[in-house]
Amino acid sequence: MKKVGVIMGSDSDLPIVEKCIDELKKYGVPTEVHVYSAHRTPAEAIDFAKNAEDNGFGVLISAAGKAAHLGGVLAANTVLPVIGVPIKASAMEGIDALLSTVQMPPGIPVASVAIDGAKNAAILAVEILAVSDPELHDKLWEERNKAHDNVIAKDAKINAQYK
Amino acid sequence: MKKVGVIMGSDSDLPIVEKCIDELKKYGVPTEVHVYSAHRTPAEAIDFAKNAEDNGFGVLISAAGKAAHLGGVLAANTVLPVIGVPIKASAMEGIDALLSTVQMPPGIPVASVAIDGAKNAAILAVEILAVSDPELHDKLWEERNKAHDNVIAKDAKINAQYK
Amino acid sequence: MKKVGVIMGSDSDLPIVEKCIDELKKYGVPTEVHVYSAHRTPAEAIDFAKNAEDNGFGVLISAAGKAAHLGGVLAANTVLPVIGVPIKASAMEGIDALLSTVQMPPGIPVASVAIDGAKNAAILAVEILAVSDPELHDKLWEERNKAHDNVIAKDAKINAQYK
Amino acid sequence: MKKVGVIMGSDSDLPIVEKCIDELKKYGVPTEVHVYSAHRTPAEAIDFAKNAEDNGFGVLISAAGKAAHLGGVLAANTVLPVIGVPIKASAMEGIDALLSTVQMPPGIPVASVAIDGAKNAAILAVEILAVSDPELHDKLWEERNKAHDNVIAKDAKINAQYK
Amino acid sequence: MKKVGVIMGSDSDLPIVEKCIDELKKYGVPTEVHVYSAHRTPAEAIDFAKNAEDNGFGVLISAAGKAAHLGGVLAANTVLPVIGVPIKASAMEGIDALLSTVQMPPGIPVASVAIDGAKNAAILAVEILAVSDPELHDKLWEERNKAHDNVIAKDAKINAQYK
Amino acid sequence: MKKVGVIMGSDSDLPIVEKCIDELKKYGVPTEVHVYSAHRTPAEAIDFAKNAEDNGFGVLISAAGKAAHLGGVLAANTVLPVIGVPIKASAMEGIDALLSTVQMPPGIPVASVAIDGAKNAAILAVEILAVSDPELHDKLWEERNKAHDNVIAKDAKINAQYK
Amino acid sequence: MKKVGVIMGSDSDLPIVEKCIDELKKYGVPTEVHVYSAHRTPAEAIDFAKNAEDNGFGVLISAAGKAAHLGGVLAANTVLPVIGVPIKASAMEGIDALLSTVQMPPGIPVASVAIDGAKNAAILAVEILAVSDPELHDKLWEERNKAHDNVIAKDAKINAQYK
Amino acid sequence: MKKVGVIMGSDSDLPIVEKCIDELKKYGVPTEVHVYSAHRTPAEAIDFAKNAEDNGFGVLISAAGKAAHLGGVLAANTVLPVIGVPIKASAMEGIDALLSTVQMPPGIPVASVAIDGAKNAAILAVEILAVSDPELHDKLWEERNKAHDNVIAKDAKINAQYK
Repeated sequence: MKKVGVIMGSDSDLPIVEKCIDELKKYGVPTEVHVYSAHRTPAEAIDFAKNAEDNGFGVLISAAGKAAHLGGVLAANTVLPVIGVPIKASAMEGIDALLSTVQMPPGIPVASVAIDGAKNAAILAVEILAVSDPELHDKLWEERNKAHDNVIAKDAKINAQYK
Repeated sequence: MKKVGVIMGSDSDLPIVEKCIDELKKYGVPTEVHVYSAHRTPAEAIDFAKNAEDNGFGVLISAAGKAAHLGGVLAANTVLPVIGVPIKASAMEGIDALLSTVQMPPGIPVASVAIDGAKNAAILAVEILAVSDPELHDKLWEERNKAHDNVIAKDAKINAQYK
Repeated sequence: MKKVGVIMGSDSDLPIVEKCIDELKKYGVPTEVHVYSAHRTPAEAIDFAKNAEDNGFGVLISAAGKAAHLGGVLAANTVLPVIGVPIKASAMEGIDALLSTVQMPPGIPVASVAIDGAKNAAILAVEILAVSDPELHDKLWEERNKAHDNVIAKDAKINAQYK
Repeated sequence: MKKVGVIMGSDSDLPIVEKCIDELKKYGVPTEVHVYSAHRTPAEAIDFAKNAEDNGFGVLISAAGKAAHLGGVLAANTVLPVIGVPIKASAMEGIDALLSTVQMPPGIPVASVAIDGAKNAAILAVEILAVSDPELHDKLWEERNKAHDNVIAKDAKINAQYK
Repeated sequence: MKKVGVIMGSDSDLPIVEKCIDELKKYGVPTEVHVYSAHRTPAEAIDFAKNAEDNGFGVLISAAGKAAHLGGVLAANTVLPVIGVPIKASAMEGIDALLSTVQMPPGIPVASVAIDGAKNAAILAVEILAVSDPELHDKLWEERNKAHDNVIAKDAKINAQYK
Repeated sequence: MKKVGVIMGSDSDLPIVEKCIDELKKYGVPTEVHVYSAHRTPAEAIDFAKNAEDNGFGVLISAAGKAAHLGGVLAANTVLPVIGVPIKASAMEGIDALLSTVQMPPGIPVASVAIDGAKNAAILAVEILAVSDPELHDKLWEERNKAHDNVIAKDAKINAQYK
Repeated sequence: MKKVGVIMGSDSDLPIVEKCIDELKKYGVPTEVHVYSAHRTPAEAIDFAKNAEDNGFGVLISAAGKAAHLGGVLAANTVLPVIGVPIKASAMEGIDALLSTVQMPPGIPVASVAIDGAKNAAILAVEILAVSDPELHDKLWEERNKAHDNVIAKDAKINAQYK
Repeated sequence: MKKVGVIMGSDSDLPIVEKCIDELKKYGVPTEVHVYSAHRTPAEAIDFAKNAEDNGFGVLISAAGKAAHLGGVLAANTVLPVIGVPIKASAMEGIDALLSTVQMPPGIPVASVAIDGAKNAAILAVEILAVSDPELHDKLWEERNKAHDNVIAKDAKINAQYK
């Protein structure tokens, strides 16, 4: 199975990125985690992206805050799908990271998820791999059904509570 | 080859969505285009999403403006990757559509591209299909190289102009 | 008397939604509370909306955060008035939920109240029912007068304090 | 049948408000249109609101731009449901009017629709009256079905166009 | 000397408004403090504004959060200068209150100060009264000079600290 | 009578500022108009502010776009009331000018009006002068009444049109 | 004299960037103009930045719209000062480009100027070179004085016009 | 070596500004720190800027919150490069300070860094001085390399942790 690369721009993003790593584990997807800064280690980030296919990656996930260029740097150096997670840093509620991630110019897309939406980045990566992997596809439905049942259970509880 | 479904919420989105359809054609990806409104034809939108896999789709692209729920409606009814294009409608510069598309809650991702970023939605869809399709993968690099050469040519021209 | 349906997208919205439930109780309006996610339990949310009239509902209140599609999902499946409460979740100060709720396209309105404005959603629901219910109408004025007198009492106290 | 009052803050709002008046006509709802400014004719606006019930109104619709206080002025003087339409004026894309309309304090709700969402204000008013008027209720479904069929027709056309 | 009226929309605004009251005291300006809600006690707010001149007021200060209509209500009923203080309430960082206060339509100005800028509202009120009161005018320069000297002292201290 | 100084940061602001000058003329208030840039002619702007009182000014009006510092420069050099008009320049819908004008730090207020709210700046200036000028006070009510009657006439016309 | 490098992300930015080039010419600063896309020609952009010092550059100016990463890409590969001009593209009033340019993480600064502020980027570049170039320094004051006199002339004209 | 002047608008900005002072120390750049308010001590701020060159300064750094005019005041009175640090104060997440700093009108640039980006202001100042100072230039690369190695070490650690 192809690997998912999870790249964060700073180790301070780890508390959010962990939700992504944990979610990928649920699906048994092989994952490799890196800290590469678009600005402090640009060469390493670029090398990683350039060699990602040869190294067995199928999807890359980028997580970064503020002027979040990491997704763009990766996407500019690979044709693998790149998913961007805008991280809410100290100021501006993460809007800076969201716009820096999602407003990519024509030609080089980054697939943006919600601010701090690390879990959804994982699921999106699995959905992409599942396009050609029936087993993953079934696991997605399995998790989807669990989430569904979880809401149904909460509905039953809260509905009863206010009767 | 799996198909790409391009769904717009209103036929008024067509001038932007056309860039997506044109781009998909470049890659020879089989494409099916629909107008389904999340609110005026919810059942049809849901049916389309539910049957998308069986009908041979590999990726869905959703384009909608204002409170753009269409991506979410599709994503809630399939585990295929769903790409969302926020459309800039009459007011608010498209920020409403961007946030309605990208700020999805945990569990159901929509892969958002830029406001009016229809061309990138197409490329992202091709990148997703290319994960398991070497031919598409080569075409992506081909187009990427053309875009690169195009910039280089413009650089040469403008660089000379201001010498 | 027709019932008010209070639907929240996640049980994490309950602390805000409780203000709505409490307010409805003040007026003795029969209320039914549910947790239905537009994305994780779309079928249940739709079924609820479709059958709402037959099940004796007169107004629906929807509370959701982030890309808050729940109000739109309900409104797309009923012609009962649907009131939307945008919930302030972890990021973006609730602006995402506000725009996702209020910027509905022509044809399918959602009556939006303020971010976290759960109490006002209840009062608006009562005002709607009171259009054809003189008793509720009188209770609305009663509560309005209490609120008025409450402000007057505070004015007297603070006015004296700074004399 | 109870009347719908349509109040605009300035005659410059008329091009948008006309969509509201036209929509109300579709449903045969008796409508009375006024220009009352919250700031230049506050007494008339208040009088209108205070006497609205006695004068046979069931719902009020307010349309105003910039610091749009008109909805709040009406709502403070009646317990009829008040719907607010934020109008996009020369600057700020209508966000000022949206926030001035929707962010009402606890106790006095205004049911906000989208910026320039005059048509939806009309439909919401009809939905409110239809809670106790089965004929209006049927007309709402009729229009809803027309809108549905309209989308389906456009889908057929555009789907064929891109085959 | 003419009085300054300080009106807050809710007693929860008092912690901010106190800075205004304290500042007015510094200048020995007679001050009257009230809690009047634009929406829960509109008649009292209007009466206060209408009678403000006869009751010896020269300037009114309004403090309110969210859809802050209070300044507009006062200004619509007097030709005294009305100063508006947008209060930062629970959500939106006070931007809602700022826009609701400052974006007044032509004809009825409200003089807006910064979000939570209660102290400046007091100084502005004194500046207005000082246009025809040489003594107040001198006190303004006195306070201005103190503020100046205060900064100079801090400069000396911090400049030395980092030498 | 004291004069009103109208200072614009650039002659490109004149089309908006003219509304201010025209309004001041209505009231027969002596007016002096200047172009002083906070950044290109800071010394002249400061000198004007410092000598404004001695030169017979009672109120200053500042109009500027983008990072609109002009109001702050004037206010820092006089204790006369300074009114700021944020001008909508080419980008950002005037929000930059609004925040640069209104968000003044404690100690030095600028009385901000709406974006492009030049007419209201004039009225506010007149209101300030009218605090000690009964004749101006009467003219304010006269104009207020005309504005009122103007709305009433429009109401009559539009009300009849839609009967 | 060291050269200024002017890099734009797309030739569509040229109409704005021309103001920068023209301004640099005024000062006789040797200038080299390029079109390098951070995403379509990343290698060229990086090579240019890496070799900028050896090629005689003293300052780099970057102009880009949307998710404007170009300034960051240059800054990550040189320790020359990099000035960023956020370009207002089709949507979002240039706020996306501003935040993507200015919100750089600690370690790698980009000196941001206003949205479409190409002329100021040129002046800032000259100011930087002038720190060690007395002749340029004098030219800066010369231009500054011309700008000053220009405003003074406009003031005289407009002041007379409204007398 | 030329000095860097670090000017903050209020001593409450010191916790952020300290990061700037500390960073400048790393490079051994002579630094002078001041508290000058654009509005409470305008004359001192202007004098400082006017005499900055004669007093041996090469670059000025300005840090201020809210309607942050300090950078503009300095820049209007010198042709030295002025760097602006927008400070996040109590409300609005620092967006007010960012726009007041960066949106300077043509002719007088302020080089803006990120909200609370005090460290980057220091590095940018050093980069400017290093244009003509090879030793500083080498230190910049030294620090850059340290930052690079720091990320690489974190990458190794986190990469191993999730293997």
